[in-house]
Amino acid sequence: MATSSVYDKLNSLEITLPDIAVPAGAYLPFVRVGSLVFVAGHIAKRHGKPWVGQLGASVGIEEGRSAARAVAIDLLGTLHAGLGGLDRVRRMVKLTVLVNSAPGFTEQPLVANGASELFVQVFGDRGSHARTAFGVAQLPLGALVEIDLVVEAE
Amino acid sequence: MATSSVYDKLNSLEITLPDIAVPAGAYLPFVRVGSLVFVAGHIAKRHGKPWVGQLGASVGIEEGRSAARAVAIDLLGTLHAGLGGLDRVRRMVKLTVLVNSAPGFTEQPLVANGASELFVQVFGDRGSHARTAFGVAQLPLGALVEIDLVVEAE
Amino acid sequence: MATSSVYDKLNSLEITLPDIAVPAGAYLPFVRVGSLVFVAGHIAKRHGKPWVGQLGASVGIEEGRSAARAVAIDLLGTLHAGLGGLDRVRRMVKLTVLVNSAPGFTEQPLVANGASELFVQVFGDRGSHARTAFGVAQLPLGALVEIDLVVEAE
Repeated sequence: MATSSVYDKLNSLEITLPDIAVPAGAYLPFVRVGSLVFVAGHIAKRHGKPWVGQLGASVGIEEGRSAARAVAIDLLGTLHAGLGGLDRVRRMVKLTVLVNSAPGFTEQPLVANGASELFVQVFGDRGSHARTAFGVAQLPLGALVEIDLVVEAE
Repeated sequence: MATSSVYDKLNSLEITLPDIAVPAGAYLPFVRVGSLVFVAGHIAKRHGKPWVGQLGASVGIEEGRSAARAVAIDLLGTLHAGLGGLDRVRRMVKLTVLVNSAPGFTEQPLVANGASELFVQVFGDRGSHARTAFGVAQLPLGALVEIDLVVEAE
Repeated sequence: MATSSVYDKLNSLEITLPDIAVPAGAYLPFVRVGSLVFVAGHIAKRHGKPWVGQLGASVGIEEGRSAARAVAIDLLGTLHAGLGGLDRVRRMVKLTVLVNSAPGFTEQPLVANGASELFVQVFGDRGSHARTAFGVAQLPLGALVEIDLVVEAE
């Protein structure tokens, strides 16, 4: 089903899926239990390196949104390779979006929308999900955004 | 079952359930997979607006407890509307309680108890749950507390 | 099955499992739904007291790793007592590792490896898991590390 509407949509958005993300430590990119897939936290990357910075300090909301969208694409790369194709995604279930935030920054939801909106663009209703977004003091390797994900798969 | 012990208990506590929470971004209030319901992060509100502040800075523990209790009530409003009644809640499973915390504040569990105790008051044993509470640098819209929830439903 | 390879491995590592962790608030150490076990956040302890400090400030990476390993042992104590034996663990599924971090500290994955590596040592492939690690402003009782866990059980 390589020509399903999901892959068509990715093509029309000129998105090329990356390889499965290499974990930054002694863990797996995802673990499946029954129909639930628990995907490890993926940090934002740009040109293959950590996309560093902090919202409310060095970085504005638009860049944060772009970083969240980049994480979402990497998550799709992991699901594509790990599940044997994105057509195996029955639906996105839950996103947890961690935003590297200076003390006064309170617009985490606008940043997180960069990931949420991409999933809905690509999957339609199957891409909609519950979400928790919040500001954290610091992320691995100084990344702007980290997202973990629960998916329902076939 | 509108007259079940759960609703009787809410009446006796003079709690009126709000409408389902409107998400602050491009996501859903909850997603169900089998018997598990993943409820999106709900931030504390007072008089319909974000209940802002930071524990250990502008706000004391009692106010933090009250804010956590207010989130718990909003979560019940979402479950009531979303599941077609609180009698569909088989049990609370897992709370993640994010407390907007100044660097020196370490009493997140006391704040989180404001939500945990309400669930046990309302549901009895079905309300008891596993929990993770921690301090975060900042929350959406400057809220004092944010909680997400996993529920087992019928 | 008290002589299974899991307990043999713990013996060879000279690890004595503690009793089930006593929750720091109005919640349960874990809740099971079907085959999924949601284990409450456990904070790092040393000599029975909170293992306090902050990475990047008072504490270095090696101590952080040791604290994460100590949490992992406490989590095993909870699973041993709660499930009626560690042989009931079908596999570790998902770790969320919260690291008490000064603003400039970005090596949360190295800290988290202290827990991840122990689970793989003890359980082999069944111990490998998905993971999300990040830096938080503060943890309950000032602890260095807090971990929550999802397990698949028989």
